[in-house]
Amino acid sequence: MSQQRHGSTPGNTGAVPAFPDLPEATIARLPEYLRALHNLAESGSETVSSEGLAAAAGVNSAKLRKDLSHLGSYGTRGVGYDVALLVDQIEYILGLDQRRAVALVGVGNLGHALAGYDGFASRGFRIVALFDSDAEQVGKPLGDLTVRHIDELGMAVVEEGITIGVIATPAGAAQAVADDLVAAGVTSILNFAPCVLSVPAGVDVRKVDLAIELQILSFHEHRKASLTAIPGGRSAQPGNQEAVGS
Amino acid sequence: MSQQRHGSTPGNTGAVPAFPDLPEATIARLPEYLRALHNLAESGSETVSSEGLAAAAGVNSAKLRKDLSHLGSYGTRGVGYDVALLVDQIEYILGLDQRRAVALVGVGNLGHALAGYDGFASRGFRIVALFDSDAEQVGKPLGDLTVRHIDELGMAVVEEGITIGVIATPAGAAQAVADDLVAAGVTSILNFAPCVLSVPAGVDVRKVDLAIELQILSFHEHRKASLTAIPGGRSAQPGNQEAVGS
Repeated sequence: MSQQRHGSTPGNTGAVPAFPDLPEATIARLPEYLRALHNLAESGSETVSSEGLAAAAGVNSAKLRKDLSHLGSYGTRGVGYDVALLVDQIEYILGLDQRRAVALVGVGNLGHALAGYDGFASRGFRIVALFDSDAEQVGKPLGDLTVRHIDELGMAVVEEGITIGVIATPAGAAQAVADDLVAAGVTSILNFAPCVLSVPAGVDVRKVDLAIELQILSFHEHRKASLTAIPGGRSAQPGNQEAVGS
Repeated sequence: MSQQRHGSTPGNTGAVPAFPDLPEATIARLPEYLRALHNLAESGSETVSSEGLAAAAGVNSAKLRKDLSHLGSYGTRGVGYDVALLVDQIEYILGLDQRRAVALVGVGNLGHALAGYDGFASRGFRIVALFDSDAEQVGKPLGDLTVRHIDELGMAVVEEGITIGVIATPAGAAQAVADDLVAAGVTSILNFAPCVLSVPAGVDVRKVDLAIELQILSFHEHRKASLTAIPGGRSAQPGNQEAVGS
């Protein structure tokens, strides 16, 4: 199950390898740690215990220590982690020191929300180009940018050094847009359309489906309702509600 | 690591327990299987092999078979899974047969996008009330609804039978909104604000942070760049790019 591979994890020396192999689950938690560390730095903290950082990031501290050990960060006993150093290490690993250029394709409601989402720019991502295939949208201003026709994608990718594409089109258009992005040289795709994309090896895809999260919550609602609905027995099981928690 | 608990998994009889305990990772994949099954049903398929369903959902088939075995679904050798039956089983487990009522708080860009997101209604969720604290927004129509003041939340939760709240406010307002939702009786929260929420036991929170997915892609971009940048050796490692894949 774990995607961690052997042979390149750091030893006990605290040395960071040239580029560590990290389990996917660890990679997914690094942005959480980073946000918590930024908040700590803003409030004047120079060091933080693993327990304190774990609480701020919403994970358990054993998992946090294991995650950070992959980066070669073990903290100092009785002192904790150096906040500024850990921020630098995580930003380096995530490549956030490079202000990545992002193209957004599809400027409907969701595209508008994404184009105006403060959380991108504040965390190292610049949306540098907006595209749509709808003639009514092309040429319209949106923030500091003007919506361009999807046919200009290839040119824009080269000119702007775009490496990440965000797809915010309907599901039916998403695969064609993904093909266009790949043909233009984009190697990472964030897909908001509710469909599975097919891409060549070497291209990474992350999918965000807003309804899937609701369906997972629905499961928990259903489970909670079934616990209270069944007379006697099950509803009295201690800890059952907390075991599948937030 | 696994959240699966023992003692309630089904045996080999194919019987579904009253309410199976499922690993969180399995719960997260059920909506993917469901979407793939709906597509298969629409295209006229009555049965599907585990390999076919796995490919359509973008997971490997061993993982799929294990996930479905938790539901008591083992398929029929040489035939595969009954599509309609599996849809019913997954929809039952996810509680999607109940058309859950959802309240959305915060009608900025993101709130507008969420309110207009077709993917909610088509998968069993009705956004039945919209709230904001901004006097300029209150009273405005949005789709079939009118934006209401957050002070009316408690009343609306009772009247509309709302069990799920979606927070699409800025981070600074999210905890207060979460407190309001919990006080009103909402037991599941989907949080789009980039912050960790504190809620009492028995309330489930799922967090969607749009920038986190970009940061994970940034990691892969950084890794790929480091593989091509280092002369000789590393870039030639076979399979390395595919090992941390989409």
